[in-house]
Amino acid sequence: MHFLRVDMTTKRITIQKVEEKYRLLGNRGLIARLSCDEIDPQCHPLGPGNKLIIATSPLDGLGVTCAGRLSAGGKSPLTGGIKEANAGGVAATKLVRHRVKAIIVEGTPQPGELYILHINKEGARLKSAESLAGKGTYGVAEAVYAEYGKDAGLIAIGPAGEHRLATAGVFVNDTDGDPSRPAARGGMGAVMGSKGLKAIVIDNDGTFTPPVSDEKAFRDARTAFAKGILEEPAIRIYTEYGTMGMLMSLNALSALPTHNFRKGIWEKAEEISGDKLHDLILERGGEGRTTHKCMDVCVIQCSNVFPDRDGKKIVGPLEYECTALLGSNLGIDDLDKIARITKLCNDVGVDAIEVGAALGVAADAGVLKFGEAERVEELIKEIGAGTLLGKVLGSGAEVAGKTFGMTRVPVVKGQAMAGHEPRGIKGMGMTYAKSPMGADHTAAATYRSQVDHHKAEGQMDASRNVQVAMAYYDNFCCMFVSRGLIKKPERFVNLINAIYGTNLGTDYLTTLGKEIIKLEHAFNIAAGVTQEYLPEFMRSERLEPLGLVSDIPQSDYDRFWEESFWGKMPDVKR
Amino acid sequence: MHFLRVDMTTKRITIQKVEEKYRLLGNRGLIARLSCDEIDPQCHPLGPGNKLIIATSPLDGLGVTCAGRLSAGGKSPLTGGIKEANAGGVAATKLVRHRVKAIIVEGTPQPGELYILHINKEGARLKSAESLAGKGTYGVAEAVYAEYGKDAGLIAIGPAGEHRLATAGVFVNDTDGDPSRPAARGGMGAVMGSKGLKAIVIDNDGTFTPPVSDEKAFRDARTAFAKGILEEPAIRIYTEYGTMGMLMSLNALSALPTHNFRKGIWEKAEEISGDKLHDLILERGGEGRTTHKCMDVCVIQCSNVFPDRDGKKIVGPLEYECTALLGSNLGIDDLDKIARITKLCNDVGVDAIEVGAALGVAADAGVLKFGEAERVEELIKEIGAGTLLGKVLGSGAEVAGKTFGMTRVPVVKGQAMAGHEPRGIKGMGMTYAKSPMGADHTAAATYRSQVDHHKAEGQMDASRNVQVAMAYYDNFCCMFVSRGLIKKPERFVNLINAIYGTNLGTDYLTTLGKEIIKLEHAFNIAAGVTQEYLPEFMRSERLEPLGLVSDIPQSDYDRFWEESFWGKMPDVKR
Repeated sequence: MHFLRVDMTTKRITIQKVEEKYRLLGNRGLIARLSCDEIDPQCHPLGPGNKLIIATSPLDGLGVTCAGRLSAGGKSPLTGGIKEANAGGVAATKLVRHRVKAIIVEGTPQPGELYILHINKEGARLKSAESLAGKGTYGVAEAVYAEYGKDAGLIAIGPAGEHRLATAGVFVNDTDGDPSRPAARGGMGAVMGSKGLKAIVIDNDGTFTPPVSDEKAFRDARTAFAKGILEEPAIRIYTEYGTMGMLMSLNALSALPTHNFRKGIWEKAEEISGDKLHDLILERGGEGRTTHKCMDVCVIQCSNVFPDRDGKKIVGPLEYECTALLGSNLGIDDLDKIARITKLCNDVGVDAIEVGAALGVAADAGVLKFGEAERVEELIKEIGAGTLLGKVLGSGAEVAGKTFGMTRVPVVKGQAMAGHEPRGIKGMGMTYAKSPMGADHTAAATYRSQVDHHKAEGQMDASRNVQVAMAYYDNFCCMFVSRGLIKKPERFVNLINAIYGTNLGTDYLTTLGKEIIKLEHAFNIAAGVTQEYLPEFMRSERLEPLGLVSDIPQSDYDRFWEESFWGKMPDVKR
Repeated sequence: MHFLRVDMTTKRITIQKVEEKYRLLGNRGLIARLSCDEIDPQCHPLGPGNKLIIATSPLDGLGVTCAGRLSAGGKSPLTGGIKEANAGGVAATKLVRHRVKAIIVEGTPQPGELYILHINKEGARLKSAESLAGKGTYGVAEAVYAEYGKDAGLIAIGPAGEHRLATAGVFVNDTDGDPSRPAARGGMGAVMGSKGLKAIVIDNDGTFTPPVSDEKAFRDARTAFAKGILEEPAIRIYTEYGTMGMLMSLNALSALPTHNFRKGIWEKAEEISGDKLHDLILERGGEGRTTHKCMDVCVIQCSNVFPDRDGKKIVGPLEYECTALLGSNLGIDDLDKIARITKLCNDVGVDAIEVGAALGVAADAGVLKFGEAERVEELIKEIGAGTLLGKVLGSGAEVAGKTFGMTRVPVVKGQAMAGHEPRGIKGMGMTYAKSPMGADHTAAATYRSQVDHHKAEGQMDASRNVQVAMAYYDNFCCMFVSRGLIKKPERFVNLINAIYGTNLGTDYLTTLGKEIIKLEHAFNIAAGVTQEYLPEFMRSERLEPLGLVSDIPQSDYDRFWEESFWGKMPDVKR
């Protein structure tokens, strides 16, 4: 396996053998390690000192379920700290087929330069992307398929990334060819834009299969791994309803962000629920799919395709986080409208969570009214068009809050919260405050932890343990695997051992998870990104209708980084 | 002496005896101590948890020269950390005449409420300021003088403060009645706006004179203190040319920010120099004044009044920092234009440094062209009018940089650098990086330190020592006093001892300076504000024309907070 190193200043591309120390690292773990090894934490996120790292999984390319995640990372223009965002889609596996474990994009080109990085069996090269300038991701996909074939892997940015806006994501094409799988959070699309890279195209002519140490053990372990996921009853909600299956549960817990995080239970939640989505898809038929896989090998298939009344796809998938942040958070109770807005976010190339939160803040400032779906569409189009208002909103909730002088701004480390209200599920407050990623639900959604979510007790331990687990899952595969495998970690290490000829015990996983988070935390300290608390309003304002506040004691926050749990922090160059 | 505590939520005003521990603290030191004692570092700067602290000097009210400074502080909406900004003017002494050592404004009113806090011999009360809504500071002054008399003290915000923009300052009236003395930096005007406070008016009917422990010793010490300032030859440049006397020296050192910090030496510098200003004022006569005092008792009188061709005042004063950031930094080489822009900044109520830096970033983004003075005037008017562009620029250089996706953004901790380029005077890089205030020249201008300003060696010690000295001067009086007294600290402590009956040695001063900075640093750590490095471009891009970069080694930055110098850090509640 190789690192493909692309210097956008000199346009030199080099292929580099992967050092031993990176062998078992992938996705988030590889980004954590490479960022600490190579990126100056004091660099400007959009400057030549930052790097855009695209990373694959150490399990990818071998038919292992859920291992085709693609990560994008580096220093975040949104938080100023380290960032890893990941997505499904088909591009990661195609990179592995070309022996590419990671792409490391360095330097910056001259202003105005715009490129495609094209990878095929002959190698990798930069080509002008002038004709794609300003195009939405769907337009990019269309142009790319016309030139490189429908079976190409695609990693692209929309106009928001070209504008270098901190809500811009990196979009990956899915099994239907839609560029609808965003490595959305933290503005890695802006970093890609700052590198003058509009798209990475990977031809489907790669033939490499990673070597396996013990074929028989591997096949057994792979089967057990997949079975381990499906055996867990909790996984079924994802296979049938996808992430939207959570909406009514989160609403019941008073954790559905509504009207810029004013309410946790919404009287209109049923209208945008997983059941409603499921019924609508079945009723409308056509291109609709209640279950759908985003990558080639996946036994969960949590994705969906949401069709309009004529059965024509509006967007695939429509996910919970989009529905919460663009729906209830903006007072929009109509799945058709939310689906269209989500599609627009994908096309403009922005993180629906961050933009939904920014629009919630803007609604408080009078820029729009809650419930005005058409106005939301207009405003997201403004982000794509790069109008001034579009740039403010496209810079995320914190910048919008500062510009409009608002105090109810649901961010930590400059990143907006996802659809898990931390007053309704108090453990999320610990996750949002302490994750090196900023307010990120994927760092540790605690709603399956055995705690009373409305009480402060036990949330620190719950969040910390889940954060460590998510970090090691994020190193290898889709985090939804954890639903099935968290109690069967031996199936996970068996798979790793069979491929890599290692002899790891299950304790390896938590050690790895801790190492990843420690690297990220150390990077942030060196970058000066150390806000570890929730916004004031969540600690003082009661969340309707249950009157909940975030009241985990400071002493629990203070204990989070204790050396007895983590061990010594690593040094990071600066 | 009292603390006047004003709760804007309940509208309750209480008078509180000053505890012993605050007795010798004033201005910056009092704000540091009160912020740590009373403000939750995790609060939102514009929320009810923050406080606006207006503090006076422990030497004020006794005819001590330069002791009439007024400080405004609390948690900064610009940096997210602690902030103290101070100004001259006549209001501080009038507060002391009413026994007010500090005003502590707490809570927040309902949206739309706007008040005057009126203080006279009968007490203090809140009155509606509805008729002043949206008014510039000069309009506020006019209305206030009509109602309360020309001899009233005034502390006011312009429309920028009402818009809660992070460039908004707190403006104090001077000896001519102009509201032209800004406690400008860090957005304390936005905090005042968030408290619904348009102005604080202090009637000139206060009669209190602070008690003095030893009258004879005090009179001798006061005389020696004033003489000590004037004996120092270095002070003469301030008495004759004011701060503008520095311009050509800083230009010679390659430290005059030009074209958004692209050059340090400007070929047009003579056009905006202190000599040019001096000559123009003498030539034009009329209301012009080459020297002028901002407060009632001042032997330095560094202020000036700049007249137009007809001898009519444009603005008083025109200072170096305004000339650098609104002049050379924006490519404007005409003092008349710079004076008009400065006046506009005072009226709109913004920090000329922060706005000048934001406009420099905006010029790089194509919002204006360098040298377009009329466009600059338009844009500052937009800040006052609260247009979207005005709000973006009025949020400061960092928000402007994020919105426009720029990398050359001259800020640390979100605050813009002043007119001391840290590549031309390398010690300023240490000051900007390490001061708890963000990039603030008043924290420690090192250009008088005995070091080679173009070399990295010795800058850490130079900056650290000056930071400590500035902190204790900032506790008592105008920092320009330091020019005369830094080598005669006994004249400083003699004065304090005579007033307070203490028996302090000169070591008290450095101990105090360290204590103040340690409190501020601890507050910032608790607030999660820990960026301590310069922007990437200043470490990589060579400053024209000498090709200088900021290259102080990281090890020097790392040594700054060493315990052997500072002692143990204080705990701060959170």
